[in-house]
Amino acid sequence: MVDVAVVGAGQTKYGNHPLGLKGMWAEAAEAAYASIDGDFEPSQVDEAFIGSVAFGGAQLGNTAALLTEHSGLDNIPVQRVENACASSGFAFRDAWMAIKSGQADIVVAGGIEKMNDLSPERKRFWLGVSGDTEWERLAGLTFPGTYALMARRHFHEFGSNHDDLVHISVKNHMHGLDNEYAHLRKDVSFEKAKSGFMVADPLTLYDCCPTSDGASCVILAADHVAKKLSEDPIWVLGSGAGSDHLALHDRPSITQIRSTQMASAKAYSQAGISAADIDLAEVHDCFTIAELMATEDLGFAERGQGGVFARNGIGRLNEGDVTINPSGGLKSKGHPLGATGTGQVVEVFKQLRGEVEQSRQVRDAGIALTHNVGGSGATCAVNIFGRDIK
Amino acid sequence: MVDVAVVGAGQTKYGNHPLGLKGMWAEAAEAAYASIDGDFEPSQVDEAFIGSVAFGGAQLGNTAALLTEHSGLDNIPVQRVENACASSGFAFRDAWMAIKSGQADIVVAGGIEKMNDLSPERKRFWLGVSGDTEWERLAGLTFPGTYALMARRHFHEFGSNHDDLVHISVKNHMHGLDNEYAHLRKDVSFEKAKSGFMVADPLTLYDCCPTSDGASCVILAADHVAKKLSEDPIWVLGSGAGSDHLALHDRPSITQIRSTQMASAKAYSQAGISAADIDLAEVHDCFTIAELMATEDLGFAERGQGGVFARNGIGRLNEGDVTINPSGGLKSKGHPLGATGTGQVVEVFKQLRGEVEQSRQVRDAGIALTHNVGGSGATCAVNIFGRDIK
Repeated sequence: MVDVAVVGAGQTKYGNHPLGLKGMWAEAAEAAYASIDGDFEPSQVDEAFIGSVAFGGAQLGNTAALLTEHSGLDNIPVQRVENACASSGFAFRDAWMAIKSGQADIVVAGGIEKMNDLSPERKRFWLGVSGDTEWERLAGLTFPGTYALMARRHFHEFGSNHDDLVHISVKNHMHGLDNEYAHLRKDVSFEKAKSGFMVADPLTLYDCCPTSDGASCVILAADHVAKKLSEDPIWVLGSGAGSDHLALHDRPSITQIRSTQMASAKAYSQAGISAADIDLAEVHDCFTIAELMATEDLGFAERGQGGVFARNGIGRLNEGDVTINPSGGLKSKGHPLGATGTGQVVEVFKQLRGEVEQSRQVRDAGIALTHNVGGSGATCAVNIFGRDIK
Repeated sequence: MVDVAVVGAGQTKYGNHPLGLKGMWAEAAEAAYASIDGDFEPSQVDEAFIGSVAFGGAQLGNTAALLTEHSGLDNIPVQRVENACASSGFAFRDAWMAIKSGQADIVVAGGIEKMNDLSPERKRFWLGVSGDTEWERLAGLTFPGTYALMARRHFHEFGSNHDDLVHISVKNHMHGLDNEYAHLRKDVSFEKAKSGFMVADPLTLYDCCPTSDGASCVILAADHVAKKLSEDPIWVLGSGAGSDHLALHDRPSITQIRSTQMASAKAYSQAGISAADIDLAEVHDCFTIAELMATEDLGFAERGQGGVFARNGIGRLNEGDVTINPSGGLKSKGHPLGATGTGQVVEVFKQLRGEVEQSRQVRDAGIALTHNVGGSGATCAVNIFGRDIK
């Protein structure tokens, strides 16, 4: 079966972006096109998948067709994928399957979100709607609350504590400081992060990612095409996805995310590797507790040991076996919902090619993982990438 | 490469459905499971794709995870596809590609829409948002208007007329009369359809499909599994899709839909057949003029001859070479946006197996086509099915 590589990747800066949906998408797509080493025209693209949750406050419908025609993609199959905050992690998976199926040689996967021109009410709505509505949202439990419940339970079961979460926040802000695409480029001290104002006990402001605008775009190609388009293609070694009950109370445990466990087990098995082989991982730290749990669910730490892992700084840039969120993660780089999944791929593409700022380059990076979660873990997509084809 | 078959298919009745999203989806999924001849458990499903536009007036987010857990699909990759009214036509295509890619053996594709508990304003919004917003919707041009422009231009260029559209309306109401799943089971005379009240000149009430609730679900399987699950699998012979500019004024012509032309050319080529080989087609007649143009774009009539085709009743049940919309089409069966694409597959699955009401069974049906359009033609998915593997 055909192997698939990423041959180009680009994104906008995350944050308060001055442009609207079409302009942001065009900026990301053009950056992706420009990153391709060989001769490339957008007319070579066979199909496109675009992840978006709120599609501009639900104002610009038929979003995939609208955006692709503004990036030189004419008359090809295009579709929008909406899977909460995992939308473009799944769009990437779809693009990869489209090539593996033999139906396409070059496919665009991307994501986009425009949040910062919404009224506070609409922003709150579109942020909250991806959780369980009937049992959680309508009772007032939105995402800071659901993740706070997970944190409290993790503290209770495993003896982790809020300081562990502060370590994650400080690390991610440190990683994002020099990332030109990051939303919050702030040097945050342990004391500052520890004393943030309370959002949902025990989570403070420094435990929560910001609300960002942003777009990201990656270009995948079948092996025989990838070698023509790129001198340094990044190979997709594995892709897995999973789901779980939407409402927390239906899950067997709220200190682990089954969708992540299933997605990563599948991706590792496909890549023929284990967590120990990963050099860097972009994980979905919408809240610091989400990163703590992800380090366990992805196999970087033993069950219950995510707090110890964070406390010991194992995920810090070039300090342990694996660097967690060298981009700054959702915490510092930002979280434009639908753009986050393929934005993670942009980061690992550049990291594996040695193309990020020197101060945050993971050394000798050969294998990378992206982990993109929808809602409080109802869906998850994990993709694994390597410099070398397996 | 692996061949793919539909082994099960089911749907709710379209119309004003008493249940909400979860209940409707469970009804359609259980009907699909029950239609499988062999031993089957939902736990055998590897992945699911669900098309929906408004997902219950945008109230029940993370829709794919929410619905699949209410139909026995636990912990598998699931995602929502939103591509306007072509959402589940594309969900079907994704499911087919997932199997072809070797990643899955059994995949669920479905669609759902709950429209009739929305306020008139919200219903209008969710119906209108899939057109071009900046140039069309905000100027007051919603879908009846865009299709009316196409009709007027077709009349002007090719000498077709409103009576041709009336013939389509009468035919589809006649076909839907005995369809137990149809929304509008009414015997509509030529005179009655001709004298409907004006909606958007020249389109009257009888040229427009209704707003329906509904859910549909189909189960696809890889060849080696399909033969175990079904004594009479229906094979997917080809699948194509395409897109076009969203706003009418950007298109080279508004009397043809380029996305349909591209999608069908690809699907025919893959199936190794031409339009002349199709015994029945479920086409996207959101407005009668859409069916008229589709008969041309899909190759059943010569360019400009869609009016003559309709006038001569060629698409009527068992009268010509091809039966167009034996289900009653969107006009009579109804149009629950996201459910329509896989709802068309439910119909051809049953038609090809000889399982619909005898009074509307297409005789000697061997090859069928589904045609699902998003918005005013910005996206289109065409799938071709056969009793025999090619």
